Amino acid sequence: MASIDLNSDLGESFGAWRLGDDEAMLTVVTSANIACGFHAGDPTTLLTTCRAAAQRTVRIGAQVGYHDLAGFGRRFVDVAPADLTADVIYQIGALDGLAQAGGSAVGYVKPHGALYNTIVHHREQARAVVAAVVAYDPTLPVLGLPGSAFLAEAEAAGLRTVTEAFADRAYTPTGELVSRRTPGAVLSDPEAVAARVLRMVERSEVEAVDGTILTVHPESVCVHGDSPAAVAMAERIRERLEAAGVDLAPFV
Amino acid sequence: MASIDLNSDLGESFGAWRLGDDEAMLTVVTSANIACGFHAGDPTTLLTTCRAAAQRTVRIGAQVGYHDLAGFGRRFVDVAPADLTADVIYQIGALDGLAQAGGSAVGYVKPHGALYNTIVHHREQARAVVAAVVAYDPTLPVLGLPGSAFLAEAEAAGLRTVTEAFADRAYTPTGELVSRRTPGAVLSDPEAVAARVLRMVERSEVEAVDGTILTVHPESVCVHGDSPAAVAMAERIRERLEAAGVDLAPFV
Amino acid sequence: MASIDLNSDLGESFGAWRLGDDEAMLTVVTSANIACGFHAGDPTTLLTTCRAAAQRTVRIGAQVGYHDLAGFGRRFVDVAPADLTADVIYQIGALDGLAQAGGSAVGYVKPHGALYNTIVHHREQARAVVAAVVAYDPTLPVLGLPGSAFLAEAEAAGLRTVTEAFADRAYTPTGELVSRRTPGAVLSDPEAVAARVLRMVERSEVEAVDGTILTVHPESVCVHGDSPAAVAMAERIRERLEAAGVDLAPFV
Amino acid sequence: MASIDLNSDLGESFGAWRLGDDEAMLTVVTSANIACGFHAGDPTTLLTTCRAAAQRTVRIGAQVGYHDLAGFGRRFVDVAPADLTADVIYQIGALDGLAQAGGSAVGYVKPHGALYNTIVHHREQARAVVAAVVAYDPTLPVLGLPGSAFLAEAEAAGLRTVTEAFADRAYTPTGELVSRRTPGAVLSDPEAVAARVLRMVERSEVEAVDGTILTVHPESVCVHGDSPAAVAMAERIRERLEAAGVDLAPFV
Repeated sequence: MASIDLNSDLGESFGAWRLGDDEAMLTVVTSANIACGFHAGDPTTLLTTCRAAAQRTVRIGAQVGYHDLAGFGRRFVDVAPADLTADVIYQIGALDGLAQAGGSAVGYVKPHGALYNTIVHHREQARAVVAAVVAYDPTLPVLGLPGSAFLAEAEAAGLRTVTEAFADRAYTPTGELVSRRTPGAVLSDPEAVAARVLRMVERSEVEAVDGTILTVHPESVCVHGDSPAAVAMAERIRERLEAAGVDLAPFV
Repeated sequence: MASIDLNSDLGESFGAWRLGDDEAMLTVVTSANIACGFHAGDPTTLLTTCRAAAQRTVRIGAQVGYHDLAGFGRRFVDVAPADLTADVIYQIGALDGLAQAGGSAVGYVKPHGALYNTIVHHREQARAVVAAVVAYDPTLPVLGLPGSAFLAEAEAAGLRTVTEAFADRAYTPTGELVSRRTPGAVLSDPEAVAARVLRMVERSEVEAVDGTILTVHPESVCVHGDSPAAVAMAERIRERLEAAGVDLAPFV
Repeated sequence: MASIDLNSDLGESFGAWRLGDDEAMLTVVTSANIACGFHAGDPTTLLTTCRAAAQRTVRIGAQVGYHDLAGFGRRFVDVAPADLTADVIYQIGALDGLAQAGGSAVGYVKPHGALYNTIVHHREQARAVVAAVVAYDPTLPVLGLPGSAFLAEAEAAGLRTVTEAFADRAYTPTGELVSRRTPGAVLSDPEAVAARVLRMVERSEVEAVDGTILTVHPESVCVHGDSPAAVAMAERIRERLEAAGVDLAPFV
Repeated sequence: MASIDLNSDLGESFGAWRLGDDEAMLTVVTSANIACGFHAGDPTTLLTTCRAAAQRTVRIGAQVGYHDLAGFGRRFVDVAPADLTADVIYQIGALDGLAQAGGSAVGYVKPHGALYNTIVHHREQARAVVAAVVAYDPTLPVLGLPGSAFLAEAEAAGLRTVTEAFADRAYTPTGELVSRRTPGAVLSDPEAVAARVLRMVERSEVEAVDGTILTVHPESVCVHGDSPAAVAMAERIRERLEAAGVDLAPFV
């Protein structure tokens, strides 16, 4: 039977500011990319989210990012590699402490926002993130884009790499994500997106913006959850997958 | 043979700003209270300091504080207890991650600055810090002032408590520290301070500002190291203790 | 004809995090207490809010607070008076720059959250805020609670003081606000609140929690706007006042 | 008689962390680039530095930068232009408030660190900074590198532009600064540097790293002051210029 992991970004509130419906998303996903306080997530939010994930046996991932609250980690920062390594260890350790206090532990690492996008190509920063994971715990898997410098460096360093596909993002003919600034980059029809994910999982295919059929073998699918519509979409994806007999479970 | 632990605050630089001579202090002390990023200490500084401490087999303590860089953690912040617990777990976890990457681990917890002073009396914040240590790792010892609400709550929660005395701070007749705002609160003559520490260790005595002789049984003595003079003082303390045959070693 | 100013807190979003419906509130109020970046409000949010206020000829006030984003300025911080004075000047200047770029200017100062509450009684911090306004521009009015140390110090320093009442907060028999932690501290029925404000304005009365009738002479009434219900309440207050022939205009 | 302005970076301490000897540098320079809190400079430091500059009739410039304390503004941040404009207005306004409270006012704008270097070439960010100055006060001069996109955009927008040369930085044959990462990029011999500045001022020449003689017409010369040696160098520059009869005065 086919099996797939669903991951989503959680724990992104900060102080008085709420973002996303973490409780709802935790009933849908099997892996939670929880912020680590650098781009979002105050410690109380993170502890609460870790506890809720532990109760639902949703796996916890450390969603590490640039130290940029005002930019929500969505702006490239030219951090020196040694500093980035220390920043990432700090973030994983902090979240792991909260996750353990909440009855679980960090089970993988997924970079966030601009850092995620940067290390698709930026080899020094990719290596710096890999070095952090290796230094913290070389048995921790990392999530990333197939073909990225990040996953290549991670593999070279002996880390377990997990490739992911995006449920609601358009792809270029070469398998990269269409920039958010381009119209049509983000898909929003729940039925279409759910069908798309099912096709990825069952037939290892996804259609790029120009009609090209790309081959994908994701071990995890990323769904977004920071709006009511997004929660509904994530729920629809889960329903379609379950109806098709796909097993929803954290990657092994 | 008498034995004593010497502790000092380290890792308090931040970005371009340097503070203290960590390398020098690591040749003097047996325990290093390393900042955790909330009152001081960027991740690179913390990682470097943890590595240096590990190389010299100096024990690493998490020096947790209020989240207040501009105030260096020296201003009381009326944090809600649940938030303080999460803040402290976050800090211990972050430093522990860096310490482990540096070949060591967090071996104890010591609150910093205004938090240290507040939880001498503030029962809710004292309990919140204790709850954080219990949640993170109930085998971690905590350092504090004898008679403080913090150590009382820690003991009640089953934590190992370690009492400390201050090498260069004046004491009131009731065994509290004279406020830094009072003239004479901080002692600066290396010989006098070294003699004072020796007397604490050998005869369990310290003289208060009014001449009262207080009984003290410190397991650790705190020396300051954020100025060239302070390093010299710490070195003199070590020399006097060693000359007197006192064993300098981390508390057990 | 009776005239009253309505003020509300605006510009409290930060980066990716949205709070309140500033556009809607700007159609209701006559004065906008705009955050200054220390408890909330990134520069882009502040500039946008200042521009919108200028377009609607809503007066702009600098809502100065403690430097505590994680706590949203709602936690007391024991800032030294000289530091608080500099912090407040910094905030007023920053907002004034953005207000002027947006076609208006800062027209008054109103402390936020824990700072507002603290300087009802804390004389040193009250004086520190007054000193900042005097240093920045001694012709700027300040908004505060009648009977507060803040307004007393402001008057003594020659500042124009403006007293305010709160539309949706319960009062103690001595005219202070019931703590938010006490049930019933915040009122939520739009009709009852609107009637309450009308009574304040027309008859200079407000009923305290124990039934005592307090005399109030507010020049401004504070309405909250950080939820859809709050906007509806503010609109209802405006309707009732206008129907009663009360002139809604910024204080002179 | 030849006349030249000497500028230096000041107000770069933060909280407990001290950087540079502002008092000493204020006896040497005629213009002070004072930090604005985004890369360095807490409000108390800034107010103190503004007051000291006002007392010595040293002109105050707003040294605006990226919002990155941990990186001291020395790391490129890919801020969206609209956000950068708001960030810069916020900073100028904040410093101007403090400068006015200190008896002076912001008299020019000079970008700091990575922002300075970025807008030599990055047209969108250059325009964003120019837009901020225009919005705040179109009569404010801006300091920059001759030939930079920043000065070109500033001129196009009608701002007064002031070109500067660097006393202690090596130049490429095309008139750019040699990267700090290249050995020899920063000069440190006081006599050689002082002679170099004198040659710039008297003969409009500076020798590049390869021996090329470049023509320069600086209206201001930047001297660094964040170390005891740097203060000595700045003093030597001043002595040589005065001895040669050059008038040291703020640019007009």
